[in-house]
Amino acid sequence: MFIEGKNALRQAIESKITINKIFVDKNFQGRKDEIINLASQHKIKFEFVPKVFLDKKSKTGHHQGYIADAVDFEYCQVEDILNKAKQHGEQPFIVMLDGLEDPHNFGAIIRSCECAGVHGLIIPKNRAVQVNETVIRTSTGAISNMLIAKVTNLKDAINTLKENNIWIYACEAGGEVIYNKKINQGVAIIIGSEGFGIKKSLLSYTDGVISLPMMGKVNSLNASVACGVMVFEILRQRLES
Amino acid sequence: MFIEGKNALRQAIESKITINKIFVDKNFQGRKDEIINLASQHKIKFEFVPKVFLDKKSKTGHHQGYIADAVDFEYCQVEDILNKAKQHGEQPFIVMLDGLEDPHNFGAIIRSCECAGVHGLIIPKNRAVQVNETVIRTSTGAISNMLIAKVTNLKDAINTLKENNIWIYACEAGGEVIYNKKINQGVAIIIGSEGFGIKKSLLSYTDGVISLPMMGKVNSLNASVACGVMVFEILRQRLES
Repeated sequence: MFIEGKNALRQAIESKITINKIFVDKNFQGRKDEIINLASQHKIKFEFVPKVFLDKKSKTGHHQGYIADAVDFEYCQVEDILNKAKQHGEQPFIVMLDGLEDPHNFGAIIRSCECAGVHGLIIPKNRAVQVNETVIRTSTGAISNMLIAKVTNLKDAINTLKENNIWIYACEAGGEVIYNKKINQGVAIIIGSEGFGIKKSLLSYTDGVISLPMMGKVNSLNASVACGVMVFEILRQRLES
Repeated sequence: MFIEGKNALRQAIESKITINKIFVDKNFQGRKDEIINLASQHKIKFEFVPKVFLDKKSKTGHHQGYIADAVDFEYCQVEDILNKAKQHGEQPFIVMLDGLEDPHNFGAIIRSCECAGVHGLIIPKNRAVQVNETVIRTSTGAISNMLIAKVTNLKDAINTLKENNIWIYACEAGGEVIYNKKINQGVAIIIGSEGFGIKKSLLSYTDGVISLPMMGKVNSLNASVACGVMVFEILRQRLES
């Protein structure tokens, strides 16, 4: 994975993503430079290279003089998420994403989940956004504190969760309003894709659909906002009980 | 205001933004075309023009064959928002944005507020994002159902709200956890900018700071997620009482 640009690189270094080496525009040599300082502090190698080298390597066209060669994000197993909950002495609190597409939404969801005390995320291997540079940047460091399992099949993951007495709720319009529920056991919620929601074939595997009351004419929230509202409502109920 | 591209234009037409005319690539003439159909249904004029005309006019470089000449969004007065609450027989429910910068966040906030039954938004005239094409698109139609007042000075707006017995809460870290409060009167919450939060000079005008419990290492949410969680918690409390 290559990470480009000052902000993304700052986030990546602070997120403890493993960086093999940072290529820096050689015109920056000798300057006081925030990224070089950060790299030195974190004992990350850097190499000064001609700007044309960076221009050639850049995929975004906005490298701003920095491109890092980083190790791909390390996904975990579903069991690791369950173990984390156990270690904390808490009922498991999990978010599954069914076909999310927008890396900004994914990053914001990681951030919200980290803030709400979610133990881990589960995403499908195919036809969905994966952890990339934009996701890392948008998560503002939360990624380094979040377990993410990538599975071949969400249905199999749901079965594993059910075997561990975890309730599975789909977040969709037209279900039971979450405010009227008491969610005080182990729980996994599913957030659907931006355009199409949750696949119908997956809905039958859940223990029910939970919704937010919609008071206006628009009948759905942005996926990352919906996830944020849901995980904080579950947190509220947990803190209350 | 010029609105470019198929999706943005579809949203704009359905959002009842006043469009003077749509310029369409003349290569589309004679085709079955969704935008031309929509324009006809809504009695909006369109004109076929050479692609080079659109290329020249385009600011985004992604016009996809469509550029609309639209009337700028019509802002309202703070009093209009208070009147809307009165007409609905509800305690005023208002969101103020102090220096928000990202149009995607602004659009998502408009969408969340519309869904949560917020009566209107108040934004400052200067140094903050205004309603533009990206905001309209990201609001997914919510903008046509939302009052937005643009004021010279947020402090003056706060004074007007206070005269109307509305409580003003800043949403920031380190305040009282909103779950422990009972917000059952007229209320306006302030959401700060993405980078710097709420201006200190404004904080002293509020009736207090409300926060969400932060269970992880990251200590803040994305601005649009924070706003979404807050307005839905206020809605939950209103529905309960």
